Amino acid sequence: MPGKEISLAVIQRLPRYYRYLGELLENDVVRISSKELSERMNVTASQIRQDLNNFGGFGQQGYGYNVEYLYTEIGKILGLDKRYSLIIIGAGNLGQALANYTDFERRGFYLKGIFDVNPRLEGISIRGVEIQMMDNLEEFVKKNKVHIAALTIPKMKAPQTAKEITDMGIKAIWNFAPVDLNLPSDVIVENVHLAESLMRISYTLKDLEASRESDGN
Amino acid sequence: MPGKEISLAVIQRLPRYYRYLGELLENDVVRISSKELSERMNVTASQIRQDLNNFGGFGQQGYGYNVEYLYTEIGKILGLDKRYSLIIIGAGNLGQALANYTDFERRGFYLKGIFDVNPRLEGISIRGVEIQMMDNLEEFVKKNKVHIAALTIPKMKAPQTAKEITDMGIKAIWNFAPVDLNLPSDVIVENVHLAESLMRISYTLKDLEASRESDGN
Repeated sequence: MPGKEISLAVIQRLPRYYRYLGELLENDVVRISSKELSERMNVTASQIRQDLNNFGGFGQQGYGYNVEYLYTEIGKILGLDKRYSLIIIGAGNLGQALANYTDFERRGFYLKGIFDVNPRLEGISIRGVEIQMMDNLEEFVKKNKVHIAALTIPKMKAPQTAKEITDMGIKAIWNFAPVDLNLPSDVIVENVHLAESLMRISYTLKDLEASRESDGN
Repeated sequence: MPGKEISLAVIQRLPRYYRYLGELLENDVVRISSKELSERMNVTASQIRQDLNNFGGFGQQGYGYNVEYLYTEIGKILGLDKRYSLIIIGAGNLGQALANYTDFERRGFYLKGIFDVNPRLEGISIRGVEIQMMDNLEEFVKKNKVHIAALTIPKMKAPQTAKEITDMGIKAIWNFAPVDLNLPSDVIVENVHLAESLMRISYTLKDLEASRESDGN
């Protein structure tokens, strides 16, 4: 639906719909009502109808949604019918964990390279992809189309490295370093800030513990 | 500020404020105006004033915010002046990556145990914490206060394991498995769904690539 503005909040929810629909498909569910989907996903049925209406009426009154159709269409909206090449910069534990995620390939993300500065890691192979030294990156990016770079390097190095790789022409960064990258607006940055995620737990936990203490437990 | 309702959106933003203020402190910045903070954080100054007003006037007209005070107060709101014990369930690459994050300890999260079902991992030590078998978990939880369990296990096992550990009394789960856990409402669940994060990239990338192609690049 080119040109149509879809709110960021809806886009943020689509991957979750996609995941649920994928699970339904695996369980051979052919169709589902917004009410059933709502119960499974813990979202109101009206929210579901509203969200999915953004993309043209997938649902039919009295019939519900065709699971496979909806799954396919949302996949297209999310760009999952395309193939993307992914490199990982930083081959520490987190980088290696990402490299080992075969799930990504099912969704069209193909690991093409892993880079690090540590010479002891050079040539070690993860799922058939060899760790290369960072010195090779520029040459690699010239020869291979790289869509996405995952940054799993220390915070201190991340902004500079991010700048360098976007100068090389990489336009999407999946940033795991706990720092904002401040890149040009045409670069896509998706942050996964784990410490912030943990702080959201402690915020809630703090109140929970306080109420337990006041209950005398 | 007990009893005061703070919107989830504000809470979600607090860890980011906390991180920025921590960086300012490291750089010996004593005070900062909402305008300067706004430029650094790429958030409007009025949003910043509005967010921080939720917690009582940290700022002073014409002076700005006292960085250390604000950092400390937000830290308290986030519960970061407390200590939390954390265990990791699943000692694969991702679990090991988490276990190696020393940053968490700076914020009061202490790694107390790592558990897995793979006997080949038994007794391997990560930063002084030995990997134990899952059979030991119940006993461990009885003897040690465990605030948070990070779940870094396969999707298929996650809901059942989550149920078991909450029955043991663990009330906060940091879930990395790509599945919703559907636990009682008094259990805190913070999801880190990496595939969904990657899908948000592909959504934007898809449009970017399409516009490039139509530009003839």
